[in-house]
Amino acid sequence: MLENITGEQLKKMSLPQLSALCEEVRQKIISTVFRNGGHLSSNLGTVELSVALHYVFDFQKDKLVFDVGHQCYTHKMLSGRFDKFESLRKKGGISGFPKREESSYDHYNTGHAGTSVSAALGIAKARDVKGEDFDVIAVIGDGSFNNGLVYEAFNSLRLLNTRILVILNDNGMSIAPTVGSMHEYLEILSASDEHNIKRDKHAKIFERFGFAYDGVYDGNDLAKMIEKLKEVKERLKTESVILHVLSKKGKGYEFCEENPEATHGISISSSDSVSIEYSQVLGKTLTALAEKNKNIVAVTAAMTSSLGLAEFFEKFPERSIDVGICEEHATILCASLATEGIKPYYAVYSTFLQRSYDEIVLDICSQNLPVTICIDRAGISGSDGETHQGVFDLSFLSSVPNLTIASPKDVKEFEAILEFSVNFNAPLAIRYPRECKNIFKMQSEIVLGKWEKMCSGDSKFAIIASGERAVTISLAAAQRLFDKGIKVSVINARFVKPLDYEMLDEIKEKYIVTVEDNMLLGGLGAMLDAFYSDKNKILKNFAYEDKFIPQGGVNELMCEFGVSEEAIFRYIENADR
Amino acid sequence: MLENITGEQLKKMSLPQLSALCEEVRQKIISTVFRNGGHLSSNLGTVELSVALHYVFDFQKDKLVFDVGHQCYTHKMLSGRFDKFESLRKKGGISGFPKREESSYDHYNTGHAGTSVSAALGIAKARDVKGEDFDVIAVIGDGSFNNGLVYEAFNSLRLLNTRILVILNDNGMSIAPTVGSMHEYLEILSASDEHNIKRDKHAKIFERFGFAYDGVYDGNDLAKMIEKLKEVKERLKTESVILHVLSKKGKGYEFCEENPEATHGISISSSDSVSIEYSQVLGKTLTALAEKNKNIVAVTAAMTSSLGLAEFFEKFPERSIDVGICEEHATILCASLATEGIKPYYAVYSTFLQRSYDEIVLDICSQNLPVTICIDRAGISGSDGETHQGVFDLSFLSSVPNLTIASPKDVKEFEAILEFSVNFNAPLAIRYPRECKNIFKMQSEIVLGKWEKMCSGDSKFAIIASGERAVTISLAAAQRLFDKGIKVSVINARFVKPLDYEMLDEIKEKYIVTVEDNMLLGGLGAMLDAFYSDKNKILKNFAYEDKFIPQGGVNELMCEFGVSEEAIFRYIENADR
Repeated sequence: MLENITGEQLKKMSLPQLSALCEEVRQKIISTVFRNGGHLSSNLGTVELSVALHYVFDFQKDKLVFDVGHQCYTHKMLSGRFDKFESLRKKGGISGFPKREESSYDHYNTGHAGTSVSAALGIAKARDVKGEDFDVIAVIGDGSFNNGLVYEAFNSLRLLNTRILVILNDNGMSIAPTVGSMHEYLEILSASDEHNIKRDKHAKIFERFGFAYDGVYDGNDLAKMIEKLKEVKERLKTESVILHVLSKKGKGYEFCEENPEATHGISISSSDSVSIEYSQVLGKTLTALAEKNKNIVAVTAAMTSSLGLAEFFEKFPERSIDVGICEEHATILCASLATEGIKPYYAVYSTFLQRSYDEIVLDICSQNLPVTICIDRAGISGSDGETHQGVFDLSFLSSVPNLTIASPKDVKEFEAILEFSVNFNAPLAIRYPRECKNIFKMQSEIVLGKWEKMCSGDSKFAIIASGERAVTISLAAAQRLFDKGIKVSVINARFVKPLDYEMLDEIKEKYIVTVEDNMLLGGLGAMLDAFYSDKNKILKNFAYEDKFIPQGGVNELMCEFGVSEEAIFRYIENADR
Repeated sequence: MLENITGEQLKKMSLPQLSALCEEVRQKIISTVFRNGGHLSSNLGTVELSVALHYVFDFQKDKLVFDVGHQCYTHKMLSGRFDKFESLRKKGGISGFPKREESSYDHYNTGHAGTSVSAALGIAKARDVKGEDFDVIAVIGDGSFNNGLVYEAFNSLRLLNTRILVILNDNGMSIAPTVGSMHEYLEILSASDEHNIKRDKHAKIFERFGFAYDGVYDGNDLAKMIEKLKEVKERLKTESVILHVLSKKGKGYEFCEENPEATHGISISSSDSVSIEYSQVLGKTLTALAEKNKNIVAVTAAMTSSLGLAEFFEKFPERSIDVGICEEHATILCASLATEGIKPYYAVYSTFLQRSYDEIVLDICSQNLPVTICIDRAGISGSDGETHQGVFDLSFLSSVPNLTIASPKDVKEFEAILEFSVNFNAPLAIRYPRECKNIFKMQSEIVLGKWEKMCSGDSKFAIIASGERAVTISLAAAQRLFDKGIKVSVINARFVKPLDYEMLDEIKEKYIVTVEDNMLLGGLGAMLDAFYSDKNKILKNFAYEDKFIPQGGVNELMCEFGVSEEAIFRYIENADR
């Protein structure tokens, strides 16, 4: 039935036809995600809501902003992309997030939490300035609702003197179960009887900000959703509305309904690699360290399990803090805990750490506080695309004074750096990718700012590499070069900052090749370019080109954007002539 | 009476003595600020509150966090720093913000808005983990209360299961008058009769988050404040309290009371320089451009006047947006306005732009939207110290794909770049310091990514400089070198990104000297180091050392941290031998 359906065709369908459509969409989501990976339960939960939105509104005219964007699959299938949907998350295929460049039905790109209400307000304000006429809708989950951006946007609704619809899609979860007082408040609203005085009294908070509150409705009840949205569409002519709907994350797929956290995102790993996740090692090591050191506290922003800290949280509830999707607040909590002698570990994905930049600079580093930031999913993360690549952290962190940055070559070195961190009395960031695919034989002692020479050459080339992926391809390139009779040095720059000035002084090779899983500017390569700027060396940097990196496989993207064994091998082979 | 008074002595004083103390403090604030510059009205408004806090609490044990920190002068005078207070904001002197390294009475460094409640929660949580016993207080103004961080912190109070006191110091202002629905809500609370049912009903919002609300009280009434704080101190044993006090910004100094925005910060300019502020040129030029282009919209975060946009806001109220201290939200508003064909200009201080990093990367740049970011106070800003130096923007912006970065050499070039920006259809950041001290004769046409050769040498040296300060000292050094018979080229790198590859190819000089008003890593110098990494050139970078830059005069700090005419002159003179 779906084919390349768009809103226009959908509007002509009967309710039974629409229900059948929901079923078809749901099956397509399940089959595609199990093949390609992706966000399962959030998309299953919003099928009816999305169908109802397309039935009532016209998204060639009206504008729709999905918060985070990981619930846009149905919307994509209903806007001419059903045919291509099997390419979801593949290189060159359909993105798992809204993408303006992909379709005129996608109006605003998202990926991080809390931006949708701001974006909807900006679009509505633009409409007003230009004297146009259309509706603007933000769909936001209760997890994102914890983020401070939402408050900032709410606070300015009256100020902007405009009208939007916010659909609060309440499923009690972000990736992890939603926490915090706003969540408790939403639960009170949900528990109240529909339309009774009690809820109207409770809903005052939203009215304070200029929204008319309407709720709570079953977001998986298609007929109800259509009816409600029609009604709300009328109200939007004169006011802004919050429509509070309850939906079931993972709806229609029993395993998901029962395991919404585990099935938030499904990751398809290639079968030929045996791998350990760095997060497992973080969890295990930090738990062991916390047994001995009563001052260790772990802080996360709604990602406890994905970061490997479930066991830690269970074992040390008093020393575990998940603040919900509030990366800035989490960062300040760590800094302030440290002022009182606590040893905080802030675990976070590289891409989400971007939210904490100012607090890293001022709260942690300018106060020189011993906070350890464990940066997971650093480097190219793959199928989630532009908004989730962890390729900027070295670039924004390297210029921050007082900060030490480490990047282990494998999980064993990661463990050693974590042990090192306990007595390290200053800000420390440790970056690592999701998976460890190799454990190296060489494991030397961790000393601040000291690198590890993994093999010594006798030629003009030294490779300085940072992080597992870079070290791995550098050693592989070195092996191939060895086979060709070119013996190069390979150095594991396990500390990106400070550089190992002693080892740098000892490098006799004329050619320095740098390799990293990060953008060039601000990264290891650029740091070494600066170090060698007035010295008689020739440097070649392998780091990512100055472009946003789309979705795809980690290896294929690394190659395409400039960091590969082949490129290193070729460069040195040719330069040797 | 003050001498080097501390809390202990203060506790023994009678109410009339304490009142006299307030008067003395107030006079000291006025005389010092008029000599040294600084924050006047915010400090005058909090004299009684600070005296009362020191009377009731013991800040060798209890912890106090000032939001932003620009209201800490009285606290400093009451904690053993009266003698040194005349060195306020001078190099090596008393900071205008709380500084842990300055006194054991300062518990948490602040400078940017909205961090205090998070920090107080972290300190309280540390206390609980360690089983200690003391009170933790955050003092926050209603301006900061707009910031999303406050919401994130409030949302986690119950979660953290701890107790803090938040003193909401409501004076209706941040730097500019406070805006937004939360502010309107606070006004409703203030207007209600004390203790009546109406206010209790209104105050429900705070209770939702786990705070007991107590207010509204006159923050300038010393006796009342002491009595209230004593009472609240008892309540803190079992619950968290929000104490809402109304204070008069600029209290006790008539001119301030009437002109709180103009007297928020007092800047003492040295009398020998005639200067124009870049902000004036922004205001004038943007207003003129907006007359012709109906799509131009200006967005600020609570700094409209300081950024030069008062006239624009008056003239085009429908196209002017001040969202309060919400830099993240402001950034997304710009991005989303641009998706609908609006041409947004986001004006912001460099230091506060740090809050928008993630939104610059994802909302503006990954969507490649034509937002122009006007970055004021870029480079060393001087007397406000570590938290306000604008020396990181190039470092965190240069690695962001799709972003063009310009840095004019004077206000005339700034005007030309603004004119250029109107038809520039991609993200653009323009960075400039507060004051323009020179207008250069040479003014060539602005072409994307094209530099300007200001003088041609015949030696081995080319200086590439970015921004007014760098260009000015570079030309001065070149003049001195010329007098010594060394004729160097000086190039105005008015675009930091993209680099002018054509001109770079033409540079025949062996030595390239780079000069900028930014940290080294990620800045212009490091970009050129990377460009030249495999080429046969010797580079010397003049950029700031890898340290936080404290308060002091702009010139003295530039010299001390590595960027000066003298250093450039010496380097080239010596290298020429």
